[in-house]
Amino acid sequence: MHLGVCYYPEHWPETMWEEDARRMKTLGIERVRIAEFAWSRIEPTPGQYDWAWLDRAVDTLHRAGLQIVMCTPTATPPKWLVDRHPDILPVGADGRARHFGSRRHYDFSSPSYYEAARAICTAVAAHYGNHPGVAFWQTDNEYGCHQTVVSYSNAAVARFREWLRARYGNVEALNRAWGTVFWSMEYRSFDEIDAPVATVTEAHPSHRLDYRRFASDEVARFNRMQVEIIRAHSPGRPIAHNFMQLFTEFDHYAVASDLDIAAWDSYPLGALEEQWFDAEVKGRWLRTGHPDFASFNHDVYRGMSKQPFWVMEQQPGPVNWAHWNPSPLPGMVRLWSWEAFAHGAGCVSYFRWRQAPFAQEQMHAGLNTPDNRLDMGGGEAARVADEIRALDQAHAEARASVRARVALVYDYPAKWLFEIHPQGADFHYPRFAFEYYSALRALGLDVDVVPADAPLDGYRMIVVPPLPIVPDDFAARLARSGAQVVVGPRTGSKTADLQIPANLPPGPLAQCMPMRVWRVESVRPSVRMPVHSSETSQAGATPAGYGRHWRDLVELRDEAAHEVVARFDDGHPAYVRFGAMHYLTSLFDEALTREWFAAIAARAQLETMRLPDGVRVSRRGGLTYVFNYEDEAYRIDAAEAGADAFVIGGPSVEPRGVAAYRNT
Amino acid sequence: MHLGVCYYPEHWPETMWEEDARRMKTLGIERVRIAEFAWSRIEPTPGQYDWAWLDRAVDTLHRAGLQIVMCTPTATPPKWLVDRHPDILPVGADGRARHFGSRRHYDFSSPSYYEAARAICTAVAAHYGNHPGVAFWQTDNEYGCHQTVVSYSNAAVARFREWLRARYGNVEALNRAWGTVFWSMEYRSFDEIDAPVATVTEAHPSHRLDYRRFASDEVARFNRMQVEIIRAHSPGRPIAHNFMQLFTEFDHYAVASDLDIAAWDSYPLGALEEQWFDAEVKGRWLRTGHPDFASFNHDVYRGMSKQPFWVMEQQPGPVNWAHWNPSPLPGMVRLWSWEAFAHGAGCVSYFRWRQAPFAQEQMHAGLNTPDNRLDMGGGEAARVADEIRALDQAHAEARASVRARVALVYDYPAKWLFEIHPQGADFHYPRFAFEYYSALRALGLDVDVVPADAPLDGYRMIVVPPLPIVPDDFAARLARSGAQVVVGPRTGSKTADLQIPANLPPGPLAQCMPMRVWRVESVRPSVRMPVHSSETSQAGATPAGYGRHWRDLVELRDEAAHEVVARFDDGHPAYVRFGAMHYLTSLFDEALTREWFAAIAARAQLETMRLPDGVRVSRRGGLTYVFNYEDEAYRIDAAEAGADAFVIGGPSVEPRGVAAYRNT
Amino acid sequence: MHLGVCYYPEHWPETMWEEDARRMKTLGIERVRIAEFAWSRIEPTPGQYDWAWLDRAVDTLHRAGLQIVMCTPTATPPKWLVDRHPDILPVGADGRARHFGSRRHYDFSSPSYYEAARAICTAVAAHYGNHPGVAFWQTDNEYGCHQTVVSYSNAAVARFREWLRARYGNVEALNRAWGTVFWSMEYRSFDEIDAPVATVTEAHPSHRLDYRRFASDEVARFNRMQVEIIRAHSPGRPIAHNFMQLFTEFDHYAVASDLDIAAWDSYPLGALEEQWFDAEVKGRWLRTGHPDFASFNHDVYRGMSKQPFWVMEQQPGPVNWAHWNPSPLPGMVRLWSWEAFAHGAGCVSYFRWRQAPFAQEQMHAGLNTPDNRLDMGGGEAARVADEIRALDQAHAEARASVRARVALVYDYPAKWLFEIHPQGADFHYPRFAFEYYSALRALGLDVDVVPADAPLDGYRMIVVPPLPIVPDDFAARLARSGAQVVVGPRTGSKTADLQIPANLPPGPLAQCMPMRVWRVESVRPSVRMPVHSSETSQAGATPAGYGRHWRDLVELRDEAAHEVVARFDDGHPAYVRFGAMHYLTSLFDEALTREWFAAIAARAQLETMRLPDGVRVSRRGGLTYVFNYEDEAYRIDAAEAGADAFVIGGPSVEPRGVAAYRNT
Repeated sequence: MHLGVCYYPEHWPETMWEEDARRMKTLGIERVRIAEFAWSRIEPTPGQYDWAWLDRAVDTLHRAGLQIVMCTPTATPPKWLVDRHPDILPVGADGRARHFGSRRHYDFSSPSYYEAARAICTAVAAHYGNHPGVAFWQTDNEYGCHQTVVSYSNAAVARFREWLRARYGNVEALNRAWGTVFWSMEYRSFDEIDAPVATVTEAHPSHRLDYRRFASDEVARFNRMQVEIIRAHSPGRPIAHNFMQLFTEFDHYAVASDLDIAAWDSYPLGALEEQWFDAEVKGRWLRTGHPDFASFNHDVYRGMSKQPFWVMEQQPGPVNWAHWNPSPLPGMVRLWSWEAFAHGAGCVSYFRWRQAPFAQEQMHAGLNTPDNRLDMGGGEAARVADEIRALDQAHAEARASVRARVALVYDYPAKWLFEIHPQGADFHYPRFAFEYYSALRALGLDVDVVPADAPLDGYRMIVVPPLPIVPDDFAARLARSGAQVVVGPRTGSKTADLQIPANLPPGPLAQCMPMRVWRVESVRPSVRMPVHSSETSQAGATPAGYGRHWRDLVELRDEAAHEVVARFDDGHPAYVRFGAMHYLTSLFDEALTREWFAAIAARAQLETMRLPDGVRVSRRGGLTYVFNYEDEAYRIDAAEAGADAFVIGGPSVEPRGVAAYRNT
Repeated sequence: MHLGVCYYPEHWPETMWEEDARRMKTLGIERVRIAEFAWSRIEPTPGQYDWAWLDRAVDTLHRAGLQIVMCTPTATPPKWLVDRHPDILPVGADGRARHFGSRRHYDFSSPSYYEAARAICTAVAAHYGNHPGVAFWQTDNEYGCHQTVVSYSNAAVARFREWLRARYGNVEALNRAWGTVFWSMEYRSFDEIDAPVATVTEAHPSHRLDYRRFASDEVARFNRMQVEIIRAHSPGRPIAHNFMQLFTEFDHYAVASDLDIAAWDSYPLGALEEQWFDAEVKGRWLRTGHPDFASFNHDVYRGMSKQPFWVMEQQPGPVNWAHWNPSPLPGMVRLWSWEAFAHGAGCVSYFRWRQAPFAQEQMHAGLNTPDNRLDMGGGEAARVADEIRALDQAHAEARASVRARVALVYDYPAKWLFEIHPQGADFHYPRFAFEYYSALRALGLDVDVVPADAPLDGYRMIVVPPLPIVPDDFAARLARSGAQVVVGPRTGSKTADLQIPANLPPGPLAQCMPMRVWRVESVRPSVRMPVHSSETSQAGATPAGYGRHWRDLVELRDEAAHEVVARFDDGHPAYVRFGAMHYLTSLFDEALTREWFAAIAARAQLETMRLPDGVRVSRRGGLTYVFNYEDEAYRIDAAEAGADAFVIGGPSVEPRGVAAYRNT
Repeated sequence: MHLGVCYYPEHWPETMWEEDARRMKTLGIERVRIAEFAWSRIEPTPGQYDWAWLDRAVDTLHRAGLQIVMCTPTATPPKWLVDRHPDILPVGADGRARHFGSRRHYDFSSPSYYEAARAICTAVAAHYGNHPGVAFWQTDNEYGCHQTVVSYSNAAVARFREWLRARYGNVEALNRAWGTVFWSMEYRSFDEIDAPVATVTEAHPSHRLDYRRFASDEVARFNRMQVEIIRAHSPGRPIAHNFMQLFTEFDHYAVASDLDIAAWDSYPLGALEEQWFDAEVKGRWLRTGHPDFASFNHDVYRGMSKQPFWVMEQQPGPVNWAHWNPSPLPGMVRLWSWEAFAHGAGCVSYFRWRQAPFAQEQMHAGLNTPDNRLDMGGGEAARVADEIRALDQAHAEARASVRARVALVYDYPAKWLFEIHPQGADFHYPRFAFEYYSALRALGLDVDVVPADAPLDGYRMIVVPPLPIVPDDFAARLARSGAQVVVGPRTGSKTADLQIPANLPPGPLAQCMPMRVWRVESVRPSVRMPVHSSETSQAGATPAGYGRHWRDLVELRDEAAHEVVARFDDGHPAYVRFGAMHYLTSLFDEALTREWFAAIAARAQLETMRLPDGVRVSRRGGLTYVFNYEDEAYRIDAAEAGADAFVIGGPSVEPRGVAAYRNT
């Protein structure tokens, strides 16, 4: 458990650096990330590097006993580079270049930029690779932020054609795989294929999905180039990238597989405001964030990180970039920090040391205010540092190795596919995955988030949000796991080429769930479809709950092999059980989802709790942590934890408070 | 009464064709539409035609006893053609070409495309013109779908200038007609005139209206070229085009005048979701469609079709293209089919035979599922086929020749004009026309939809939704008809050049309605303007209903000639009667509109009913049909139809049911 | 007090002119604005002027005894000019030229247009400069209308670079002022700097603010060029420009400083519909406009006009350009006219004499209908003319010289800054300024609207809506004024370079308000933050009101110097008083704002009233005017005005009525 901070020596007079470093150390900060936006200072003139200032900054921090996270500055190519190579600019769906003047103004497929990035990356890695103060590396910054993965440049199209050639071998295979005979979209060569954009009506979905896959692969290739350079020049230093929150346009698993550390940037209030949550939810958690949002991300990145994951940027106060930017309630910065550790973080690094008084993010809080006084978040970080030091070392270790008993399968291409091919306008994959996750967490369950190709053995319960394309061996692995498996609608509904499986959905999963989805329907958000459990169903009975958004209409093949646990008003199955496989044909309301998950957990021999909306429990390293997002204190059951077991707080957890006690 | 189906042999292995044809025939299908998207298979390489596969498909279908509707494939030019002639792409209002990769990616004004279309059309017509299996033709597919009528290409502007030259003769006449002196928009030659797009604020409305007229004329010209080629090569075969629903960017009357059959594509659920209906209405008819939507279209296309109109594409299950795509309730496919016949359809053709597992429309249901089992819609189609066979032949004939006693005037340029020149943001012409239609249908009246230049003699009641430009002889024809005439607001409010008439609105209709609209106002949708009938009007009285959207403030010229039937709260007339002319100065709520229409129908000696919202009655070919969109059974009055009169169903019409009985 | 009208002789047959002029005169019109859109008639062919028709028009009007307001026609360059110099077209944020076909299609920075405008302006000024009928001039028409101030053309960028060079001297100074080190946005020369547009995420706020300042300066430069030409050719005639309503993209103070008369175009109904008001407010004042909207504008333009300000265009009936265009209630045209005079207008000029039956504005009412009958607005104008004539001359004079006791500081760059850098998506400067204004008016107070650099001495109460950049001497001037000063949140929050002040907000105002805004927060519109007065605050108490949108969290530096008048629920100060300085940390609800303003006014020895929402009082020229926007009559207190004091109306002011009485 370590604390870090993001620091920009180039933003401040050199006279402040030494005192800054000293104060960081005093506060309990051990790691400092620097230089990810410093290209124009490192190479102010093409080919002329100015290391002097950065050497002094690195030395100052190192002397103060801080470990440096050195970054490659490729997220912000300087103006002279853009003017020399205008083709490095990405091109939007409107056909226009996206200009210089903010950040991430580069095209992953631009050969000029690839070379320029390789050069600056090599220069930085060669210069600092063996510096004793440089302990970690970060590649670039927040790949994909501001929707910068997909570009429609000529360079991207040229590389896409090569990508297609590699995938399909010959154009006939592509025509077959996509089904281009529809609407006379057949190609005679790969060179006839353009980006799927600006078409009269929707472009071909297989074409679009491949373009998204290609774009995702380009990010991985770009990152891999950087990783290889750093490894060559700075052996032994772990390499991280700071991913942005939950949802993105490229496959995080693929990029993470080349890294040592998957880090992410946690902004709970900005995320609440900008994500799918409805107005009532946004109002309720206005100054705390949603109780499951940060932890979902923690569990996502923990799963893909070889070393304990990091929070590379932790919100320390109000941010500047959401539509509205409230101030976190007192205690939240501490709560968020401990929550990260409770989910296995190796390091929580605050963004940023001191609020900058200028430029785009001048309204983004830091640990210190622009007039260099400790801000509220800074005080809470100091408290966390104290608490870490006080913590029994035994509990502070081995936290990343713990495995949960519940796995939730999370997939990136699923998001792209449902965006491209929604069939119902609000079919929002991350939202539905999050709702399943949240239902599990409300039951007090710890959850591992895993990719669809992860080993599944050992889990007692596996939850699969709508997963349109399933691996060939998925059914076999699910069965072999012995777990109770919850499967959401639309799972197995598409082949890898984005076609309907020959046996109809659930495609390969019909092996373990002998049924056939003969029809589907989507309905507007205002439509609620009443559900009755099979036992209590009768005319006029109060429904057990409601389906929303979607229905798979299923035909069941074998009377003996299944049980219809619940049905819709019109008789269509809502929830069908095939032994340990539990198929949900719709997305259900929060209460019903939680109730069914509780019953399935019980079948899996998992104990569950009924937690208030804003109370969450996590177990790690021999400790049970309790987090209270509510406005009321939460009383931990005395039977559960003796008063003397507490290592943080006590049985009464104050609003926005944290408690941790030794497991008995 | 015939059934048909849309079939894509090129989508399926040739080994399936024969069995498909056999099953169609068995099901009761008699006609098969093919090849409208098959250009890339017919001409896979420029100038090299491949007829072999299509010959085999045609022969297979023909051998099975099916009649073929052969199509020209011009809706989907292949990639090689686009690459050779990039100028065939239409250009959007944003100035960008609309790209290849879906369909309808062509500009009606492109000379290259005109020639290419002529060539492929000639090739297909010459090859199949005399094939014994080819019984009908379809030109292109859904002109105007995906907003493809108006293009802003250089080719379009060049032809627009010629169009203007032909219309106005000299530019001085144009300047006068448009009134370009306003804002110094005067032109010195036709060559100075651009497309009315991308202007700083709104472009000149007369300029815009002429551009829309021009674009509509371009569609008619393109279609006429195809019709002439087909007639030359395939004499005696009726030629159809499949129009898209009610609302479009070109004048359907003009295109239909060159055809033998006006067909339309009926998707009641997608239409409900995508059209103007409010959320409550969309929820209420979620899985049935609006009870008047399909029939309004039937009546529109019946009116413009020389032979009985067709439903060329009938929704057979969920579609893929609306924002949300619910599943039709059991019975709806049958109900929709019978509804078409009851309104005079010659053929109902389902789209499509089998759901394709690939490409853009893979989620669009067919009569069969992708795994080739009969889908619910297929079963209902078979039932319709059986019912047709069982029907007394006497009743099955001469249905198109029946004329209703009520006419509703429907006009395409009115839609363009109110879009260009709304004066109130929600002045939606098709909506208001539909609301008048719906009020008539709720009264159990059969309606003919006619153009403004149609002969009007013989109708007892004529309803004119807001018709801004009226033909010169309209007043005279209305008067001569002897009918009770309902006239909506804004009628006669513009000259053909889109100017205000010299005598103010209602312009030429002041002949039969001596008044002067001295002012108009539009109000936000939330504003309801209370109306009182002249008899009961008094302070504090409950209003009879409400005006919405719009008011014409009228000055009445001659006390003797009129009666103010109802007034607004502030005294302005709401409904003025001039003998048989009934002028409505606003758009009124549903109940009040229905009540007034009932009273006017009574003056016209028409008997009316008070039907539930979801029950509709149609009379044709000696039969009275009853359709029940409701969730409750509907009981037909015993006095109205004896039990032995029923040829379909009986006096109790189940939810989503159909009944038909012989007229006594 | 004079009446005028806008007239377009080029729109009508010459045979109508004389009668038009005669009728104007008879109606009481004294001034006629002409020719602002007549370029294509004045110069129908490049370089060939046609003065004959306009000479005849001018002579006709002059002979009838009317004074002419002659305009330069630069708002509508003709097509031939655009075709010769396509670079005169402005370029939108999307990079596309904004085309010919409406108006204002020119770029203020285009050298070709600058020269063309200079030429036509010189020609008109030289031709009519000494005509005895030409009494006034107007430059161009409604600068900034249709968002035409900011252009992204190459010409604009070239001039922007020069502007930056002039402001900063060297690029290092610019880099420092903007803080371009952030995100490696540093420039090596002015020539590297582009327009701040089309960036990947938000462009640099200082860059954007400077671009807006530059664009505003370009308008002033263009106008100044015209003013200088007119002054040279037509000495002694006052020069006006007609500004558009309250809100715009350039600094009106700067343009007005070159003029003699600041005029504005008053469209109360269109403004209500198009501005920020919520649906309930829009419904309530549907046919009257908001009771404070026109008067706010009057007070704005009175403040910046050297001679009495004008309403150059007064709405006479329904307009055509709002989303919905209701008809003003009877009486409103008269009420609006008197309201203008009561606020100091020198002239109210109606737009337009007669409704045009053609082109874009054919649905815009005039004083006469298109068939040349007097419209309702024309009748009300005639009544106003009669009332003016009847008015005691003593009261008709010196009305512009009166100074109010309350000043409201209104600033244009504040609007740009909060648009660029909102931090909360709905931080709408004009709205908040208007809400403060409205609260003062509801208390019966007369208000001067002044710029931040205005002399403040002599005011008893000064209200400062959120003013991010304050002049250096602002604190000193406020203190010296002796007034009670209300300061809104975010005041003093930015330096001139758009950075956070070194001492944090309120920056230089900390001199008179010793505090430090250590944090801010913005909240969604649905969030209400309860406020309690310090006296009554206790758990469970009903709040005194609510903060919305924003909070400054303040640290108070000196216990003795302040009083916390009210706090939020969580203890943060809501309203802090520092002697005569009253700092509001949020935007409060209407009732609470009014209550606090009333208390502050009492401290300022100002008497206040509690007026109904739709009743407003103005004092000028020895008269007190009362305006009644309500549906009920309003009774003026007998004690206030004796019945014999009334010069217009009497103590009972009918709905939509006006009264005026001599002050005792």
